[in-house]
Amino acid sequence: MSEIEDLLREDLRGQSPYGAPQLDVPVQLNTNENAYAIPEDVAAVVAEHIGRELRGLNRYPDRDAVALRTDLAAYLSRKGGGPDLTADHVWAANGSNEILQQLLQAFGGPGRTVLGFMPSYSMHPLLARGTSTGFVDAGRESDYTLTPGHVSWAIEAHDPDLVFLVSPNNPTGTALDAAVVEAAYETTRGIVVVDEAYAEFARDGAATALGLLAGRKRLVVTRTMSKAFAFAGARVGYLAADPELVEKLLLVRLPYHLSSITQAAARGALACAPRLQAEVDQLKHQRDRIVKNLRAKGLPVADSDANFVLVGGLRDAAAVWRAILDRGVLIRDVGLPGRLRITAGTEEETTALLDAFDTVLELRPELFDTQERQP
Amino acid sequence: MSEIEDLLREDLRGQSPYGAPQLDVPVQLNTNENAYAIPEDVAAVVAEHIGRELRGLNRYPDRDAVALRTDLAAYLSRKGGGPDLTADHVWAANGSNEILQQLLQAFGGPGRTVLGFMPSYSMHPLLARGTSTGFVDAGRESDYTLTPGHVSWAIEAHDPDLVFLVSPNNPTGTALDAAVVEAAYETTRGIVVVDEAYAEFARDGAATALGLLAGRKRLVVTRTMSKAFAFAGARVGYLAADPELVEKLLLVRLPYHLSSITQAAARGALACAPRLQAEVDQLKHQRDRIVKNLRAKGLPVADSDANFVLVGGLRDAAAVWRAILDRGVLIRDVGLPGRLRITAGTEEETTALLDAFDTVLELRPELFDTQERQP
Repeated sequence: MSEIEDLLREDLRGQSPYGAPQLDVPVQLNTNENAYAIPEDVAAVVAEHIGRELRGLNRYPDRDAVALRTDLAAYLSRKGGGPDLTADHVWAANGSNEILQQLLQAFGGPGRTVLGFMPSYSMHPLLARGTSTGFVDAGRESDYTLTPGHVSWAIEAHDPDLVFLVSPNNPTGTALDAAVVEAAYETTRGIVVVDEAYAEFARDGAATALGLLAGRKRLVVTRTMSKAFAFAGARVGYLAADPELVEKLLLVRLPYHLSSITQAAARGALACAPRLQAEVDQLKHQRDRIVKNLRAKGLPVADSDANFVLVGGLRDAAAVWRAILDRGVLIRDVGLPGRLRITAGTEEETTALLDAFDTVLELRPELFDTQERQP
Repeated sequence: MSEIEDLLREDLRGQSPYGAPQLDVPVQLNTNENAYAIPEDVAAVVAEHIGRELRGLNRYPDRDAVALRTDLAAYLSRKGGGPDLTADHVWAANGSNEILQQLLQAFGGPGRTVLGFMPSYSMHPLLARGTSTGFVDAGRESDYTLTPGHVSWAIEAHDPDLVFLVSPNNPTGTALDAAVVEAAYETTRGIVVVDEAYAEFARDGAATALGLLAGRKRLVVTRTMSKAFAFAGARVGYLAADPELVEKLLLVRLPYHLSSITQAAARGALACAPRLQAEVDQLKHQRDRIVKNLRAKGLPVADSDANFVLVGGLRDAAAVWRAILDRGVLIRDVGLPGRLRITAGTEEETTALLDAFDTVLELRPELFDTQERQP
């Protein structure tokens, strides 16, 4: 063991860093990015917002990002489903990873535990480890769904300090019923976090936990601008919760954590929300096209409220992943037996993906375990 | 105790968030910001670098910020004093606060301790608390200097996992002798971090620990673009260390922690380093002017290698702070008896500060404990 490895925290030794494999292929449908580049007119608005900040960068940013939080609250309130939110209900950070890290720093930590339901967002256990919070995985049903009964049972069994729910879940793509969130909240004495990174892609009528916030002081809904706002490169995550809970995060946030440029860029994109919604609608359309097409080929696909789908019926998922890659399309092997995760792309990218599936199904049927084709 | 307070980590209860008081006064010399706005030509270069990234923000940033780290390594190598550094020796994050937090997450944590020497950067104990790392304060000499003997004694007494040195120290402004860093490194089995946030403001010949990196695998030098690059609002901190140590930070960094915009903005500013150096030189000049002027008034001032000075000889520091503020100049009461910290401003701001001191010395001599005026 080297000198440096020897000095590393014991629970980090021998570990590998998080990393989605990045390969240079024409069609990248592996990291659930928004397939559309920022439209030129939106980029111009963002540039203008940033431009106003540049000369003043010698000064520290607004530590509390009040203007951005005001805009985010207005956006969430406008999208409805919830109570009228103000800046006091909202907190923002460098991606929802930092939001979740701050929640763990404030309400988790040594001797405390967070309860998760894997497979889900793969960062949850890593964020717990990074903050020395115990992570308990209560698992899911065999079809990866989550029921109120299972969630309540797991909370009673483990008495966690925080509960992480993900809706729509990653990698399945299916939104949670409000009943699951309600059951979690009623059973636990701790903080309930509902990670809604993909909320804007929900099928019509799919639930958001924003509507449950009123009167639930321990409930947190996290969101991100990475997906619906095509802003993954800008790193803006946020949450909505009771103002008293939000205030506690100031104790653990790094002072001036969110740059003036990030705050300005986010406000620029928020000003263009209706414009960006058009591309969300297009991605939902492509997502539905993938679901319908793969189901028609006899492959089971989970209902998706996200910009990705989880396809099953693969006898050898790794071999299918490779065969699709050989046709220039990178999708994600999330490590679930017989399943692969596919991000919805532009119309052309989605066509390339479906063509690749057609070819591989045709040439190598032995890799699949198709069911009777659905009408 | 409210429901939320009750759920907070025990060691955070009843605490207040970090916060430099921000008041809306004409001359702000309280947070060690660079007094100069970004020059228009530099802002244009930064805008151009950012502009290239905007349309591609739908994609995640380079997780490892290789291009930025390459530029930072070249900048450090060019500034000399050290070995030839490559991207592998450098790591970057959202401000040096995040750099220090990652170091504590990797090499500190529960059951481990970091040794600091207060008064120093006031975030050190807070960062330790945020990462559940024990913080031991070994104090300083009565004039706030640090000797090799004291540092070695403290390390032997406390056997820390990390040692935080700050050079030039904040709030004193004086750079450490290389002998102090060498003594710390030779005595400890742990990681030695030298925080050089203000290194570019050093008087000619003042030490940097960059020159000590070769052959010292446990040594880390942290820097920031906040000060010399007038980039406090952009949040870019970085470190130089052995590549093996740098690699360990990937285990605790949040994936995609540094936005594409931040990476681009920093590269734009680095391309303008010589242009920004002119303003550093001007600030050093104003800093020296404050030191000379206040000493001439009979007030003791520590030698400064930073863009701020610590003035002593104040019988009632809080009253002097208020009297200076009443004259439109905000400086910082850092809580040291009889002392105040003053950031060097533009020529006009510095004149306003010195005029304010003149007036207060004249009108309220009872607030001061001046020594015989130095020639």
